[in-house]
Formats: sequence, C-alpha cells, structure tokens
Amino acid sequence: MTTSTALLLADLAGVAVFAASGASAAVAKRLDLFGVVFVGFVAALGGGIIRDLVIDEVPPLAFADWRYATTAALTAAAVFWLHPQFARLRTTVLVLDSAGLGLFTVTGTLKALDAQVPAVGACLIGMITAIGGGLGRDLLTAEIPVVLRREIYAVAALIGSIGVVVLNVLGHTGPVPLTAAVLLVFGIRLVALRRRWSAPVATPPPPGTGAAGSPR
Amino acid sequence: MTTSTALLLADLAGVAVFAASGASAAVAKRLDLFGVVFVGFVAALGGGIIRDLVIDEVPPLAFADWRYATTAALTAAAVFWLHPQFARLRTTVLVLDSAGLGLFTVTGTLKALDAQVPAVGACLIGMITAIGGGLGRDLLTAEIPVVLRREIYAVAALIGSIGVVVLNVLGHTGPVPLTAAVLLVFGIRLVALRRRWSAPVATPPPPGTGAAGSPR
Amino acid sequence: MTTSTALLLADLAGVAVFAASGASAAVAKRLDLFGVVFVGFVAALGGGIIRDLVIDEVPPLAFADWRYATTAALTAAAVFWLHPQFARLRTTVLVLDSAGLGLFTVTGTLKALDAQVPAVGACLIGMITAIGGGLGRDLLTAEIPVVLRREIYAVAALIGSIGVVVLNVLGHTGPVPLTAAVLLVFGIRLVALRRRWSAPVATPPPPGTGAAGSPR
Repeated sequence: MTTSTALLLADLAGVAVFAASGASAAVAKRLDLFGVVFVGFVAALGGGIIRDLVIDEVPPLAFADWRYATTAALTAAAVFWLHPQFARLRTTVLVLDSAGLGLFTVTGTLKALDAQVPAVGACLIGMITAIGGGLGRDLLTAEIPVVLRREIYAVAALIGSIGVVVLNVLGHTGPVPLTAAVLLVFGIRLVALRRRWSAPVATPPPPGTGAAGSPR
Repeated sequence: MTTSTALLLADLAGVAVFAASGASAAVAKRLDLFGVVFVGFVAALGGGIIRDLVIDEVPPLAFADWRYATTAALTAAAVFWLHPQFARLRTTVLVLDSAGLGLFTVTGTLKALDAQVPAVGACLIGMITAIGGGLGRDLLTAEIPVVLRREIYAVAALIGSIGVVVLNVLGHTGPVPLTAAVLLVFGIRLVALRRRWSAPVATPPPPGTGAAGSPR
Repeated sequence: MTTSTALLLADLAGVAVFAASGASAAVAKRLDLFGVVFVGFVAALGGGIIRDLVIDEVPPLAFADWRYATTAALTAAAVFWLHPQFARLRTTVLVLDSAGLGLFTVTGTLKALDAQVPAVGACLIGMITAIGGGLGRDLLTAEIPVVLRREIYAVAALIGSIGVVVLNVLGHTGPVPLTAAVLLVFGIRLVALRRRWSAPVATPPPPGTGAAGSPR
C-alpha cells in the first residue's frame, strides 16, 4: 500500500466517522432518511468544502471525487437503519471522532500551506476544516454549536494546526512528525473527554445590563 | 422569442417564486420590510450563489446580473404588502414552487457539468442549487430546515439531477429531454404533496442512551 | 501616516469593534473562552470572508493577513475577561459599531467595484460585507438575526453602498467623498438608534392560513 493510498483510506475513515456523528444527531431530531443523509454529508464534508473554497481549490474535493460523498452517504444511511445498535457504540464513536479531528486538522493545515496561505491563516483553516462539519451539523439541527460549548474540542484542533505550521517552518513534514501531530490532537481530545476539561466560562453579566452587542 | 430568452424568463420566474416563498416565511416571523426582502433574496438566490462559488463562476450570477436581485427584491416586497391576499394563493404558490424546484435542479446540474464537475458532484450541486435557498431561508428564520423534514422535496431534486447527468452521458441535452427532466421533478413533487409522501423516519433511540454524536 | 496606513488602522478598528460585539453576545450565551473568541472572529471577519469569496479574492484577507485574525481574537479575549466593565461601555460600543458599519460598507463596495462587479451586485456585496458578520454571530448563537429585525441597520449599509456606487460612476472616489459616505451610514444608524426608527412590519397573517412558504 502506497502512502497516498494510506492517506486516502485515512481520509475516508475520517469522513465516515464524521458522517456517523452527523447522522446520529439527525436521527435524534427525528429527521427523515434524506435529512439524516444530508446532515451526515454536511458533518463529514462541510469543513473540507469551506477549506477548498477559501484556498480556491474548486470544485471542492467533496464534489470532485465521488468516493467522499459516497462514503458519507452510505455511512449516514447505515446509521439511520442501525442506530439502536449504534447507540451502544457511543464510546467507540467518540474515540473515532477524536481520531477524525486529528486527521482533518493536519490535512487541512497542510493543504492551506500548500496553497501559499500564510502561517496564521493556515492554522485557522486547519481548525475550520476539522470543526466546520460539526458547526454545519449543529446549525442544520438548530442547536448552538456544541463545538463552541463543550470540552476542549476546537482548541485541540487549533493546537494541532499550530503544530503543523511549526513543523512546516522547520521543514519536518514527513510522515512521522505529521502522524505525531494527528496523535497530539487525538490525545488532547481523549484526555479532555475523560477528565471533562473545558475552557473557562465567563461569569454571567449583571442582570439588566444586557449584552453590549445585543442592540446591533 | 429565442431559446436563451425563454430560459432567462423561466429562470427569473423560478427566482420570483422562491422569493415569494422566503418572503412569506419572513412575514410569518414578523420580520420588518428589509428582513422580508433579505430572506426573499436568500431563498431565491442562495442556492445559485453556493453553486457559483463551488464551480468558481465568480462573481455569482446573483451579483453579476442585476435582473436576478431586482426580481427577488420586488417579489418579496410585493408579498410584504399583499400577503393577506397572497395567503389565499397558497396552492398556486406550492405548484409554482414545485416548478421552480424542477427548473433550478436542471439548470444547476447543467452548469456543474459545463464546469467539468464529475457526475456524482454534479448531481449534488444540482440538488443544492434547488434546495440551498430554502435551507438559507430556514436558517435565517431559526427553523430546522423543512426541506430536511417534509415530504419528498430534496429527493425529487436529486432524482432530477441524476436524470440530467444520465441524459448528458447519453448525449441527449436538447430542449426536449431537459424539459422532461424539469417536468419529472415537478411531477414527483406534486404527487408527493398530494399524497403526503415522506421519506421514512427512524424510530426514536431508546431514552437515556442519547445520540452518539451529541457529545462532540 | 500615509493613506493606506490610515485605511488599515481604520479597518482594524472596525474589526475590533465587531469582534467586541460578537464576543459580548457569546458571553451572554455562556459560551466558553474559545466559543467567545470564535464568535468574535466570525462577527468581525465573516462579512469580509463572504465578500472575498464572492469576488474571488482568495485566500480571503482574514486568512491572508495575520493582523486581522489577531485583532479579532485579542479583542474578543479582552471582552471575555473584562465584560462586566465592558457592559458599562454599552453606548460607546453602539457608537463604534455604527462607525464600523459605515466603514465596512464603503470598503466592501469599493472592493466589489474594483473586482468589476456591476453596480447592483456591488451594492449588495457592500451591504453583505457590513452585515455578514452580525448574521454569522446570530446564526452561531441560535438567534433570528437581529439585523433582520431591529432598527434601520442593514438599510443604512445599503444606502451607503448605493452612495459609493453613484460616487464611483461620477468619478468621485477620493478620500473626501468616501469619508462622507462612511459618515452618512454612521449618521443614519445613530439617528435610527436614537429615535428607534424601524422599517415597517407587516400585519400578522390571519390565523389558520399559515405562511404560503411553510409547506416547502
């Protein structure tokens, strides 16, 4: 198996995991089969579509390579039919989701650097690649995006993307350091889940003052 | 009247119908005149803007040709002032909306094929062109998108876009087969409305297990 | 100080003000530190990202120039830690927000005209640049976008962008007329806030008829 085949398989595994996560949320919202597949598609491919639009890689990979959309659709449909069994796999899904987070962070950051995006922008694009699908999933199901509320999630992606940019500056972009970056994000996310780490929350504003931005 | 004039008129008719649909939803949410026009604009032109960004046709037609935005804005404003009368036209609007669905599916798929997008991607882009405006309308009015919950809607668009791709492979892209594809989507949608067809809904997950994706 | 330095500083001031507005809304929703920074980033840079995608200026300035993202992130983080004091600055924020609205309207319209977008499209893009960040902020915090519901806000931006297009046709694009356009938007918005001007709202539809668009 060549490196590029390995990368493709890993990428499609990430797509499948994120599609399963989106499909599960859609099943819980009582969407129909099409809605479940659509939310699964957005959760799996939304981050990559934003990334490709921003770096002008058009049409985005999700539309240019049929294996991506097909993987997402088949996985989401499988969750639709098998979701009672799937619910028992909750821990497995969380672990796979964390692995997908690491993978998408690293590939997103690398693609942005390849497209000559400067360092800070590449970090942001890497993070958005990893969390964009989850944002889209939550917008479609009318939730405040949980990636903005829960334990360290996007922060793990951001740390990973900064790591990739630093490795790139140092010239270490071989398989070993990049795999280490994937594992770094994966590990941070797993530990955060385990220990229920969260970023700090502000104390609520005093009643009556309102949010400064609300009248906008 | 030449073919391209006929196509433009048909396209603008689709824009007007979708703008009316968006404006009606915004009126029901008590948005002000500007809000009604804005949601009408998004409902009418949102799908086409996404399509044009994805196939790198920039600036998108909605910004490049003033007739599109003007048609959407005037229609939405008319609904704002005339909506009590408009409410009585509900059946007419549903029929016109179904016609717009068919038309946008076919033109969206053709534009994607013209831009060298492969078959699976072109099907998806055709469907997104047709349903994207309705998605934007529902996101702006804080609803779970009804295109993801109701009777066969996006599925009709998907069937039509697959039909266009097949016709394209076979070399049948003259006015007659394409009109047949428009009518196919139109017909499926009308019959689905009439018979209240829906895609299947999953049985709810057992209480307490939660959705597998929720902790993300 | 050269003109371009003045423009950059003014632009970054607009970014800071909009980031503060987004961060305040996120604090009110009890998002964590990362969520507050992310919503601040979207509020400050979302409109410009949409503008750059639509005129094919990629990667968007928000990713291409580190000063934009850094300004947004630092401002949002400052609001997170200082928000009780910040709440007392409410009037100041509203005034600055109005100034940002004027500035983003003018720069967005000018960039669209530079990219050869026709007049009507350039007006729309200018307005979207100014209000896009606020829309994104409200979608992320699961609100019906207030820019669609409150006092004259987007309308002020639209008037300003039409003004810039007219000035451009007349060949008056020096610093003085453009500053006048910024002040026009700023003034309309301030007066609207002061007098609680709103665009008209339609009378509610008779109960039971439903919105014409709802079955879509």
